[in-house]
Amino acid sequence: MIKSRAAVAFAPNQKLEIVEVDVEPPKKGEVLVRIVATGVCHTDAYTLSGADPEGLFPTILGHEGGGIVEAVGEGVTSVEVGDHVIPLYTAECGQCKFCTSGKTNLCSSVRATQGQGVMPDGTSRFSYQGKPLYHYMGTSTFSEYTVLAEVSLAKIPKDAPLDKVCLLGCGVTTGIGAVLNTAKVEEGATVAIFGLGGIGLAAILGATMAKASRIIAIDINPEKFEIARQLGATDVVNPKDYDKPIQEVIVDMTDGGVDYSFECIGNVNVMRAALECCHKGWGESVIIGVAGAGEEICTRPFQLVTGRVWRGTAFGGVKGRTELPGYVEKAQRGDIPLDVFITHNMPLDDINKAFDLMHEGKSIRTVIHF
Amino acid sequence: MIKSRAAVAFAPNQKLEIVEVDVEPPKKGEVLVRIVATGVCHTDAYTLSGADPEGLFPTILGHEGGGIVEAVGEGVTSVEVGDHVIPLYTAECGQCKFCTSGKTNLCSSVRATQGQGVMPDGTSRFSYQGKPLYHYMGTSTFSEYTVLAEVSLAKIPKDAPLDKVCLLGCGVTTGIGAVLNTAKVEEGATVAIFGLGGIGLAAILGATMAKASRIIAIDINPEKFEIARQLGATDVVNPKDYDKPIQEVIVDMTDGGVDYSFECIGNVNVMRAALECCHKGWGESVIIGVAGAGEEICTRPFQLVTGRVWRGTAFGGVKGRTELPGYVEKAQRGDIPLDVFITHNMPLDDINKAFDLMHEGKSIRTVIHF
Repeated sequence: MIKSRAAVAFAPNQKLEIVEVDVEPPKKGEVLVRIVATGVCHTDAYTLSGADPEGLFPTILGHEGGGIVEAVGEGVTSVEVGDHVIPLYTAECGQCKFCTSGKTNLCSSVRATQGQGVMPDGTSRFSYQGKPLYHYMGTSTFSEYTVLAEVSLAKIPKDAPLDKVCLLGCGVTTGIGAVLNTAKVEEGATVAIFGLGGIGLAAILGATMAKASRIIAIDINPEKFEIARQLGATDVVNPKDYDKPIQEVIVDMTDGGVDYSFECIGNVNVMRAALECCHKGWGESVIIGVAGAGEEICTRPFQLVTGRVWRGTAFGGVKGRTELPGYVEKAQRGDIPLDVFITHNMPLDDINKAFDLMHEGKSIRTVIHF
Repeated sequence: MIKSRAAVAFAPNQKLEIVEVDVEPPKKGEVLVRIVATGVCHTDAYTLSGADPEGLFPTILGHEGGGIVEAVGEGVTSVEVGDHVIPLYTAECGQCKFCTSGKTNLCSSVRATQGQGVMPDGTSRFSYQGKPLYHYMGTSTFSEYTVLAEVSLAKIPKDAPLDKVCLLGCGVTTGIGAVLNTAKVEEGATVAIFGLGGIGLAAILGATMAKASRIIAIDINPEKFEIARQLGATDVVNPKDYDKPIQEVIVDMTDGGVDYSFECIGNVNVMRAALECCHKGWGESVIIGVAGAGEEICTRPFQLVTGRVWRGTAFGGVKGRTELPGYVEKAQRGDIPLDVFITHNMPLDDINKAFDLMHEGKSIRTVIHF
């Protein structure tokens, strides 16, 4: 048993508490990782708020980390002690129906137990004062030591700075991947991006990498526009500046609509607008944001019959173990400027401040250092 | 001015009247066609019912015809007198933004005026007792003589039987094209087809042509199942035989859902079921049916975020002038057994019977012979 400092969410809609938890050693097919740094993402806040119907408490949140392998369980062959890794909330076993399909990154190997807040054997490795704590998204990076399934770890180069590339564990990769992997935006295409949080800004970056000819960044908070332009946005639009629906604004700006749009908020009304601002005949809209429980998207089917395509993406369609190391290399080469996304750094003890900054719209990403 | 026998829809929700109308000669870029035969499609019935908010009366309906060029207007070069042609409600000019995109068959060249029931110069070539009649879908095949834009005609081989290949002007091509062009169903894929009217049956045929491994045909009228099997359906399902939603039935039958589904009815609830019976990670659903005015499709965005794709198709994504002749050749080779779809033949005078048979679900296609 290892002692580990962790930020524990004991109950929904309460502050995290920094306590010392107990971590059991890794079992067969599992790996003990020392987390060096972790981002704080809206999904952590969503679960913490209690609005996530699948949220389980008490738990250790966090899913955007970077760490070093401390110990491996029986049968683990793909990583060894000392390897640098990024935890994956979307595992990649390479063997299930999904992994072998060649069509998706949604591996099914550990999904069922991951959703239940436990390891594949059905139990937790975390406890506090003798009582088990739930794992979260198979990662629980808000703990200095965490245990993951081997298939939930991407091995990355040791010279990559963990306190920066940890952001590739979720938001940045999701945004870039949605553009490059899911939508496959071509050079010269026109793109609209709704919502300029970490994922939306990463989607702008992805569109810039894809050499899109026009990148329209949309947010009701104009304070986001400067950084959007810095990442490559050619136009910035505040829906509050117009009397008509935002989809009409975009259609008018682009002679009929954009080739691709991305919803990076989780608002079902914006998802509709994102679809409907796409060009007739070929426009494709990708949903990245996670909507509230039970909410539904709607549109007239005529939107699809006249050639628009509605799709979604999880982790940007990126396969964690085979493709994420390439993203790390891109970041090391400077093609993914992670520093732009990191607006704040702080120690674990201050993690509740990171949530406050996020709620106030004042941060893009805060990196927590252990 | 030519005298032409035609079935005129003088007002919504009334019987068609067989009368002699006046047809003006073709103007610049227009072609006079003698219709030899025409199918009667649900879209004609939808407009006739008065439910189509864009329906205009009095008009000459019909959009699934086969005919012979009788005269050409100034500047027409792609067809000449005596050519056999299939009228296209989806034109193909080859020059507009849509035609040159390489991404869609939705040509914009004559769309605006076509929707207004007139020729591109803004006037009608049809009149009855001195008063103009509206054109319909740019085709108006319920008239022995009709005038079309040159871009709305596919030239086909003279040895193709017009009273059969006329069906390629709408339903059969739409169903096959949705499978082969829009969804691009691969060999071995699993497919679910909702609604076994002409389009649904054609989609089964398309799935058979694509060598799908499993073709699940779904309808609440079990009388359609025999012909569905004849065209290649491997399974037939009547939703009325189950207590649970049809999407769950299909998911259970297929170990997680089908690779592709097609909605061939125009029912927004079935459109949702068709999406939700697709396999997580890659399943794609194609809307072919035309929903009622103002109706909306809905689903939880989670359906898309977990990898399903929602799209639609018009005329099966087929470019009329460049691709339809290939469909005619397939029919001539026997690869598209049009006879299976033709359940009734009758003269123009009996056209109201064709609508009755369709409403009663007793016909697949009735071909009207002039």
